[in-house]
Amino acid sequence: MAIESTHLSTIVPNLGVGEIADAVARREITPIEIVEALLERVAATEGKVQAWSYLDAAGARAQARILSDEVVTGRLRGPLHGVPFGIKDEFHVEGLPTGMRALDILPMEPEDATVVTRLRAAGAIVMGKTHMPVRNKELPTRNPWNQEHTAGGTSSGSGASVGARMVPFAIGEQTMGSNLRPACYCGCAGLKPTYGRISRFGCFPFAWSVDHVGLIGRSFSDLALVLSVLAGPDSKDHTAIADSAPPADLQLEAMRPPRIGLVRNFALDRSEPVVLEALERSVSLMKQAGAQISDFNLPDEFPLVYQADRIVTAAEGATFHADEHPDMDLSGSAGRSGALVPATYYLQARRMRAWLTEKVLAAIGPLDAILTPTTPAPAPKPPGTGNATFLVPWSFLGFPAITVPCGLSPEGLPMGLQFITRPRADYQLLQVGAWTENVIGRLPAPPLP
Amino acid sequence: MAIESTHLSTIVPNLGVGEIADAVARREITPIEIVEALLERVAATEGKVQAWSYLDAAGARAQARILSDEVVTGRLRGPLHGVPFGIKDEFHVEGLPTGMRALDILPMEPEDATVVTRLRAAGAIVMGKTHMPVRNKELPTRNPWNQEHTAGGTSSGSGASVGARMVPFAIGEQTMGSNLRPACYCGCAGLKPTYGRISRFGCFPFAWSVDHVGLIGRSFSDLALVLSVLAGPDSKDHTAIADSAPPADLQLEAMRPPRIGLVRNFALDRSEPVVLEALERSVSLMKQAGAQISDFNLPDEFPLVYQADRIVTAAEGATFHADEHPDMDLSGSAGRSGALVPATYYLQARRMRAWLTEKVLAAIGPLDAILTPTTPAPAPKPPGTGNATFLVPWSFLGFPAITVPCGLSPEGLPMGLQFITRPRADYQLLQVGAWTENVIGRLPAPPLP
Repeated sequence: MAIESTHLSTIVPNLGVGEIADAVARREITPIEIVEALLERVAATEGKVQAWSYLDAAGARAQARILSDEVVTGRLRGPLHGVPFGIKDEFHVEGLPTGMRALDILPMEPEDATVVTRLRAAGAIVMGKTHMPVRNKELPTRNPWNQEHTAGGTSSGSGASVGARMVPFAIGEQTMGSNLRPACYCGCAGLKPTYGRISRFGCFPFAWSVDHVGLIGRSFSDLALVLSVLAGPDSKDHTAIADSAPPADLQLEAMRPPRIGLVRNFALDRSEPVVLEALERSVSLMKQAGAQISDFNLPDEFPLVYQADRIVTAAEGATFHADEHPDMDLSGSAGRSGALVPATYYLQARRMRAWLTEKVLAAIGPLDAILTPTTPAPAPKPPGTGNATFLVPWSFLGFPAITVPCGLSPEGLPMGLQFITRPRADYQLLQVGAWTENVIGRLPAPPLP
Repeated sequence: MAIESTHLSTIVPNLGVGEIADAVARREITPIEIVEALLERVAATEGKVQAWSYLDAAGARAQARILSDEVVTGRLRGPLHGVPFGIKDEFHVEGLPTGMRALDILPMEPEDATVVTRLRAAGAIVMGKTHMPVRNKELPTRNPWNQEHTAGGTSSGSGASVGARMVPFAIGEQTMGSNLRPACYCGCAGLKPTYGRISRFGCFPFAWSVDHVGLIGRSFSDLALVLSVLAGPDSKDHTAIADSAPPADLQLEAMRPPRIGLVRNFALDRSEPVVLEALERSVSLMKQAGAQISDFNLPDEFPLVYQADRIVTAAEGATFHADEHPDMDLSGSAGRSGALVPATYYLQARRMRAWLTEKVLAAIGPLDAILTPTTPAPAPKPPGTGNATFLVPWSFLGFPAITVPCGLSPEGLPMGLQFITRPRADYQLLQVGAWTENVIGRLPAPPLP
């Protein structure tokens, strides 16, 4: 593929992570051209979408110039050389504030989060920080597909930046549903990996036994490439699991059609007809392509997961945020009501987590993954940020989950399929995602300028 | 060494674990002769000491007969073939109740604790269960050295059974100070290993992040032999650490004199003069033998360990025992007052544990171990069970600790040196214990019939 520079501003925003890295490595395009083309896309769409809390145009250009010079001298830092990305505002980036849209003047961070360190080492370019307003209730980010609708929860800036094609991938974070929900609403591929799969060093905590670094991109091969750079143990985060990073290549040519359990209880009866229709259409296509799809029931005790989650996240959030300034009323899991939880309830909730994990593992058995809608409905209008009911259990239990775009509602809003599997099987789950994506097709670009 | 059978009843009670195993392996004595000689010792001393809640004489004889037959056919199960032991009543032993001196008629356990499984597989013989009265306040066990004094806390039966030379080793458990304190008071060598070093499957829990299986014996080479059988991961206890078991041979011939930090703050000013004199005497002998002994200060924040410990053990105890029958008022860590602890306090206490662990590790630095008295005074008279102040921190932080007998008080009561080192260095700590024991000498047998 030879790229004509006159068309960069239309071509680059539609390239994936791997396509950009390949084009840079083949010297068909320079990192500075990539950044300029994406900044042009931001200029054209940000007024409608409002994805960025700190767009670091100058910093991105400076990084891109260095990386462009390195290409000339034959040096490639790693598999993401010249690939820009957005990162949720709760992660530390050296020289940028961790603002989360507070109005105060905030100090610049002295140090990168591990996620940023690893992405930079692989050659990626920080484009800026994406909106995650937690210190007031106003969510400025709008859905790239329809700006009257929300882009999701606190990772909505990350979801919208990818959905609007301003960057090929972004880093999110999920404590309840805030990585997969914006990914789904914005028509993206999303991964909430196994608990501890990606280091959280340098990431603002909400509830440390539930917080996950998440990935949002345009395809599952792109997410696999980014995960191969980010996963692996980290001495700065003792909750990071010891497994080495999975390979970037999903080896789809060697993959047999997956065995999937379609979750029949607790999810379908809460989903709107438009979502059920999209699910049925997708299942039908998957079956035609050879997938074995059977009915699956979660254990009867499964709904206890919601009570246990509220207790654990409330208690951990209140502990971490005990010293917050009283006028900073952090939402949800970080609220101060958790200070009222008795320790015995917290400990019983954690024991319940271990007990439910065993039950769900036994139920999944030899299946490659189980399947629910990602959300019960497409993105609602603000001030709602959407429903995380189907996502919360997997955040709490730490099982990996993905969202695969599965079509548009009559209003043109994306919907998604959530696949879940056993802890540590992130690579296999991304294979399922890539296989499904190939079978049901990808979404077009959203109707933006 | 050839053993004359006419003297078995005087010789066998004074043999250590390794000596018995060696004599059996060399066919100088049979397991049934060992058991009969020890049952004779029990008959002569139990009236005064009261170490056993369930002495399983019939069961021990039955095991010994099988093991004796196996020796004849040339089979040795493992390094403890024919060695009897006592086990604290909170561990499950197949066919015996887990009574903890409840008066009810209790069911027989269907399954061994992992500790028992591994000891049996190595050829050891269950002599019975040792007293640990928790369901009433009456502690029947008396100190083998002076029956007007206590033998320690809930592992007092294990300490007294070894101290009175009724068995060569016993299994205890330490949540606060209840393995090293009875070991010290009864003139024994004791090990509270690193947290998770020995599986707790089948052990009644008090506070699961603090409970440790402990060992009580007559020498550190004996404890090393038992630990080599017991340590190592266990799929039935997910808190058991993954390290494989250390070797049984302490390789003292290759060992240089240890570098020891003598703890100057928080311990010496709480110790009675008789204990300080014994400590000074021991330190002087160790220095003469080449040990490098320097003054050592625990971090200034160290006393916070006591508050954090009370919060964690109270909360975990109250959680596990939430369903206990109301008339079973379990003492200490298992009391119901822990139900009043807020989750935020519990979580802060656990974070404080991690923070103190790092501080203490940094302070220990390259030292082989640090040193305190095991207890501030020799064993008091009942109803007191003695002072665990110097032991509680290492139970809470999970650092391994040992007690080395270091002489007798004017009333003839044993005193001990507690050595502590970094987690997972149990083997090196047992080397320090054996080296010290060789330098300062062992205690004689207690003045019992």
